[in-house]
Amino acid sequence: MTVSREVELEGHIIDSGMMQRCFGIIMDMGGSFSVEEFEVGRHETDESYARMLVEADDLDQLQSIVHELHQNGANPIDPKDASVEPAPADQVVPHGFYSTTNHPTYVRYEGEWIEVENIEMDCAVVVEDGDDPRAYTKVLNAVEEGDLIVTGETGIKVEPPERPRGEQGAFGFMQGGISSERPSESTIRQIAEAIAETKAEGGKVLAVCGPALIHSGAREDLARLVREGYVDMLSAGNGFAVHDIERDLYGTSLGMDTESLDHPRHGHKHHIYAISEIIREGGIEAAVESGTLESGVMYECVDNDRPFVLAGSIRDDGPLPDTITDAVEAQNAIREQAREADMVLMLSTLLHSVAVGNCLPSTTRVVCVDINPATVTQLLDRGSAQAVGMVTDIGTFVPLLAEQLVGEDESDC
Amino acid sequence: MTVSREVELEGHIIDSGMMQRCFGIIMDMGGSFSVEEFEVGRHETDESYARMLVEADDLDQLQSIVHELHQNGANPIDPKDASVEPAPADQVVPHGFYSTTNHPTYVRYEGEWIEVENIEMDCAVVVEDGDDPRAYTKVLNAVEEGDLIVTGETGIKVEPPERPRGEQGAFGFMQGGISSERPSESTIRQIAEAIAETKAEGGKVLAVCGPALIHSGAREDLARLVREGYVDMLSAGNGFAVHDIERDLYGTSLGMDTESLDHPRHGHKHHIYAISEIIREGGIEAAVESGTLESGVMYECVDNDRPFVLAGSIRDDGPLPDTITDAVEAQNAIREQAREADMVLMLSTLLHSVAVGNCLPSTTRVVCVDINPATVTQLLDRGSAQAVGMVTDIGTFVPLLAEQLVGEDESDC
Amino acid sequence: MTVSREVELEGHIIDSGMMQRCFGIIMDMGGSFSVEEFEVGRHETDESYARMLVEADDLDQLQSIVHELHQNGANPIDPKDASVEPAPADQVVPHGFYSTTNHPTYVRYEGEWIEVENIEMDCAVVVEDGDDPRAYTKVLNAVEEGDLIVTGETGIKVEPPERPRGEQGAFGFMQGGISSERPSESTIRQIAEAIAETKAEGGKVLAVCGPALIHSGAREDLARLVREGYVDMLSAGNGFAVHDIERDLYGTSLGMDTESLDHPRHGHKHHIYAISEIIREGGIEAAVESGTLESGVMYECVDNDRPFVLAGSIRDDGPLPDTITDAVEAQNAIREQAREADMVLMLSTLLHSVAVGNCLPSTTRVVCVDINPATVTQLLDRGSAQAVGMVTDIGTFVPLLAEQLVGEDESDC
Amino acid sequence: MTVSREVELEGHIIDSGMMQRCFGIIMDMGGSFSVEEFEVGRHETDESYARMLVEADDLDQLQSIVHELHQNGANPIDPKDASVEPAPADQVVPHGFYSTTNHPTYVRYEGEWIEVENIEMDCAVVVEDGDDPRAYTKVLNAVEEGDLIVTGETGIKVEPPERPRGEQGAFGFMQGGISSERPSESTIRQIAEAIAETKAEGGKVLAVCGPALIHSGAREDLARLVREGYVDMLSAGNGFAVHDIERDLYGTSLGMDTESLDHPRHGHKHHIYAISEIIREGGIEAAVESGTLESGVMYECVDNDRPFVLAGSIRDDGPLPDTITDAVEAQNAIREQAREADMVLMLSTLLHSVAVGNCLPSTTRVVCVDINPATVTQLLDRGSAQAVGMVTDIGTFVPLLAEQLVGEDESDC
Repeated sequence: MTVSREVELEGHIIDSGMMQRCFGIIMDMGGSFSVEEFEVGRHETDESYARMLVEADDLDQLQSIVHELHQNGANPIDPKDASVEPAPADQVVPHGFYSTTNHPTYVRYEGEWIEVENIEMDCAVVVEDGDDPRAYTKVLNAVEEGDLIVTGETGIKVEPPERPRGEQGAFGFMQGGISSERPSESTIRQIAEAIAETKAEGGKVLAVCGPALIHSGAREDLARLVREGYVDMLSAGNGFAVHDIERDLYGTSLGMDTESLDHPRHGHKHHIYAISEIIREGGIEAAVESGTLESGVMYECVDNDRPFVLAGSIRDDGPLPDTITDAVEAQNAIREQAREADMVLMLSTLLHSVAVGNCLPSTTRVVCVDINPATVTQLLDRGSAQAVGMVTDIGTFVPLLAEQLVGEDESDC
Repeated sequence: MTVSREVELEGHIIDSGMMQRCFGIIMDMGGSFSVEEFEVGRHETDESYARMLVEADDLDQLQSIVHELHQNGANPIDPKDASVEPAPADQVVPHGFYSTTNHPTYVRYEGEWIEVENIEMDCAVVVEDGDDPRAYTKVLNAVEEGDLIVTGETGIKVEPPERPRGEQGAFGFMQGGISSERPSESTIRQIAEAIAETKAEGGKVLAVCGPALIHSGAREDLARLVREGYVDMLSAGNGFAVHDIERDLYGTSLGMDTESLDHPRHGHKHHIYAISEIIREGGIEAAVESGTLESGVMYECVDNDRPFVLAGSIRDDGPLPDTITDAVEAQNAIREQAREADMVLMLSTLLHSVAVGNCLPSTTRVVCVDINPATVTQLLDRGSAQAVGMVTDIGTFVPLLAEQLVGEDESDC
Repeated sequence: MTVSREVELEGHIIDSGMMQRCFGIIMDMGGSFSVEEFEVGRHETDESYARMLVEADDLDQLQSIVHELHQNGANPIDPKDASVEPAPADQVVPHGFYSTTNHPTYVRYEGEWIEVENIEMDCAVVVEDGDDPRAYTKVLNAVEEGDLIVTGETGIKVEPPERPRGEQGAFGFMQGGISSERPSESTIRQIAEAIAETKAEGGKVLAVCGPALIHSGAREDLARLVREGYVDMLSAGNGFAVHDIERDLYGTSLGMDTESLDHPRHGHKHHIYAISEIIREGGIEAAVESGTLESGVMYECVDNDRPFVLAGSIRDDGPLPDTITDAVEAQNAIREQAREADMVLMLSTLLHSVAVGNCLPSTTRVVCVDINPATVTQLLDRGSAQAVGMVTDIGTFVPLLAEQLVGEDESDC
Repeated sequence: MTVSREVELEGHIIDSGMMQRCFGIIMDMGGSFSVEEFEVGRHETDESYARMLVEADDLDQLQSIVHELHQNGANPIDPKDASVEPAPADQVVPHGFYSTTNHPTYVRYEGEWIEVENIEMDCAVVVEDGDDPRAYTKVLNAVEEGDLIVTGETGIKVEPPERPRGEQGAFGFMQGGISSERPSESTIRQIAEAIAETKAEGGKVLAVCGPALIHSGAREDLARLVREGYVDMLSAGNGFAVHDIERDLYGTSLGMDTESLDHPRHGHKHHIYAISEIIREGGIEAAVESGTLESGVMYECVDNDRPFVLAGSIRDDGPLPDTITDAVEAQNAIREQAREADMVLMLSTLLHSVAVGNCLPSTTRVVCVDINPATVTQLLDRGSAQAVGMVTDIGTFVPLLAEQLVGEDESDC
């Protein structure tokens, strides 16, 4: 069975984004719609009008959708009076009370539209009866037993602000973004599913990696993802590869336990040594073949034929033989990889992620993970059709992602 | 004289935000439009179609607008072939070259639409002539003398990504936000103009202030703004007032020069003393009247009858007699102020700005300044019709704002 | 068997921090020392002198310690010439090469101390033989086969910068802080051990919690830690408790799956409802007893008799009956709790963590977790004797901590 | 006249940093000292003892110093009883009250040392008389008229925490860092003085610049500093130079007013054009000579013979002919510049600042400015003898710095 209801939108409903938001709400909430009437404003000062039939599977769903549309300025047709109910006790609202937005709001009472005074978000609306009825907001705190509280969404009109006409200068029109707060584990689970899906469809996953991934202890789990085929290609800087190799070459040979958190005092010397050793061997692949390099992300790339691009930078201590030190050549290599990727994981590096992102079409799936919210915002701000950003710790993200994709690391057990 | 051109939009042009963006572009760039034909998709799977006449004052402006519309998926009607011009030298593009977006793109060549291969943003498009003509992107670097480079916007079609249907989970549809990088001094100038305008219209300006304002040395300049009438009301925490008062009471009496950056080693004791002294006097107003308090933001508020609300918090060292320590009472006082404000300056405090912002209708002008980008984002994310956020240093912002509004501080000369 | 070596320190070895750092190095690296001679500079312009015997269990350890002391300005006594070895190939250093600091450095060559030219950190030192021998740095890149590279630490003197005398103004003396990059999982393991240890000693653990903990999906794992007795007391704001309760009351009843990441469109109304419902019941404990509240952090606190303090704030939508809205009263309640705590976990809240931190003696163990590095720095900056800060995602931290302390959540299996 | 007082330190006074801090305090506050007795702990478990004579110019200064030493664990010799004074009113402390630290504290009362109960920072100490006298902390709030409050510093002992022996794992010993909150304008003034001083001594100033400097509107002011000789050398990336040049070439020619904040919709195309034009000219110097490039930072560098190094990166849209695209060659050029610099200004770029910083000896003066606190911390963390970091907006910093050094920009008037 399908239930339906007509709603109407009036005003600058396109350039204010109202119509777009309403279409999005219906689709996100699983309903459907047909536009029964549409009068578009012919000029930019004309208002537009739309009448839509919203359909849903059941009444609950329909009400949820209509409620949400209503909060965004779409009003049910054939308005009835708003319903009111007395507050059952001080500071207690009746079930189904109407919770305000911060936009200008009107309630229909005894056939008349009354403007709600002192509009403020997340309040109840109290109607004061009498010859000249009034409506005003009350915070929960101020609600008194017996107050006539507006309930439901019938008989309420909301007018979201419209985009100011003309040039705007510093003052912009704020439409409200997507909140970044999300349950971390559930988001990681969905990213894992998207990776698995991409692989199942024969797609390729490119991991773009910064050195923080190694410092934060996620090296072994990324190596597992490479080995198990969830990462097909790697893009990183010279430093990432050196840190990864250093862990293999010096992580235990000098008695330093990489698990113990003791500060490796010779750390930086090992860094130089690692470069020097790989140069002595003639490159990473040669070092794997000679048995010098036995584990880690770069090892797994070589061992499993996953191509990698290492780009040099002016802060490197010295390039590995595999590192492309010329920025133009490196960019060309990055471009080749980017074009082959169906999904890109940007893991705690701004420089390399921007370089890869510059070469991506807007149709490639993108996952961007960084502990710095500004980095995530900058990387997502490119009009990708499918993108997810997470402000989280790469040192906990990669282990939890690997756990989802390939199970618990047995070496821990 | 008015010039005009017809453009058309096809696809899910409403729920992808394409139509909204196009309307916004025309209005922002000073043009006007009339919608000549509009076929709205009746169901969510139907595509829509719009044909618009875009008008501008001169040809230059029209071309700018049409170019921008084109980047966002609106295509000129009656397409002609794309024009091409040979590159004058290696790595040099012809004037007027077409710079790509990262969306799927087609060029019209000899009457046929060819898809541009390897699409990537900020590239040139090279057309390879022949029986089977091809078009592909080239970065500036790779451009060779004689390459046929596409110029102008004629004969080019761009298809921005559409909002995926159905529920989205972690992966969202990214539309591209507003970049936060802005010229600091020019932005401050525009904020000053908006304040002056608000005052000229008889409006009231509420300043919401955090203690960093005092620490960063902006106290004297805020005091000037209060004195000169550019700030009508103040909302802050107990700590703000105590720091402000401490500067007056102990800034010089113990021989410490607040300009010298010498760390005031007794600083925290002075903080407690300041509270103790004001309690001894019976409150801030009494301290001004007795001559104990002689300068600063709180002094100017009392001396010029600008009402202030001080709210207590669990991290205070002790409340002043003027501080409202009960959160509910404080909120009520904040609400009163917020309702009277026509413009709110949120100056480096998240807690108090959220408290005030919760009580504001979406029609109040808001300026939000903080050095932490996350704070600015959170505060602007409320659907205000006119808002500006600045990620800057409050210690340089307030002096530069005061310079704009009331001129150089004479006491410095 | 014990091995030992004499080293000496000269200069302003106390106020430059050199002596403190050297003592710290020896202790951290498992060695021991005795001071054999100590001449303290009697006045602030006099230099000091110290001669120490450093002891270790074996030669390897001794060399590591002496190397590290040496990097910090302590020089082995009875200097011999520096040893040099030719580079085996271009860009390859001999094993045991000396890696430079950025401090002025001298090498002893043929009985003479030569200053190393162009000092720069992480370089090799090349000695150029001849009548007038020179020593200078070379980056790995520039090393040529046959270059005489200094190896080992013998015959090398390093002079770390000294604290400038007199007032410093803006320019401070930088001693080098502790890097914040740490392996995340290993750090969490050590925090879990410290909690277990505190509990084993009969100590009490106080958790100070911000609402981000709930938003990021860590609620169930914190509830487990409360139930299993790893958290004895809770300190939070009104918002934390309301979010926690809202999950219980509305997390499933309206069909919204909290695991699915679907945006709970009615979310904020639920927030107000949750407050209203608890007010109707008369408080959190009453709601647990009546069976209205059946899960979550607050539920476990009530069910397991873990005392909690909820403080109100000016941004609350409305206080629960349990919330202390007066800042002074709330502070007193926080103080009581803080004094009983042997270990404090500060979990993604600046306001409440500062409030609790203000009341703690410097002997209480502190763990501070936040995704914002500035918050972690501010909270740790209080001279605690035992403290650890982690810049990580609370939504992955709490689950991983709970996994360490009480094992995998069975309800997930 | 000189006044003096003896103080003593006991415990692990070197490795806890206590002695270093005390020496630093005396020097910073303008006093002097002589060490009259020093018993160094011969082994790491032995405690040390020092007796010092602290001298100052007058009694006020001496008291300030001794107070500060005392807060850090140095206790005056020949202890007398603590002085106490009744509180004059509720919530009011007597003048000269003792404000607590959070370390274990003892007061001497009637000849006996009593431990202060419930120690907590920033409290008063109340002594309760009687057979068994007690001492405990009270927050200002709780002080009642007549309470016997400890005043002055006589008869009080403080025991700062000592560094735990042995390895530390995750839990570190926190000594308290330097707070970053500083008056912005005063700090800028001191930086200006240091630049002027460096120039007066014949030194050279190297500016390391990121593109945010141009975006934020500070281009003209940096150009003035180059022209007037306050910046001798420039180090930057390709993007910085291109943005600077684009402003000159396209800032006004297309009718866009760079002051108006109107979003330059063709902005990115101009970026590519700017590169293309300079390639056409053959380089920046050639473009200046031909009159194509007429203003800005790069123009002033060429016109005033200030050498610059431009390094390429993988996110460039295309290198200028002047840009060194090979990372190793670029590093060598950076190294040359760094060695000649006597003072380095690091202006809102992490990548280039690290590259330059890697090549600097610890004796070079460093100024580091960025809006991201993490960048400032990372850059200062290198043991420089003279360094200042500022978390501020580069778009307001450079104008205010230029105003200090070369006066108001006349072109504004």
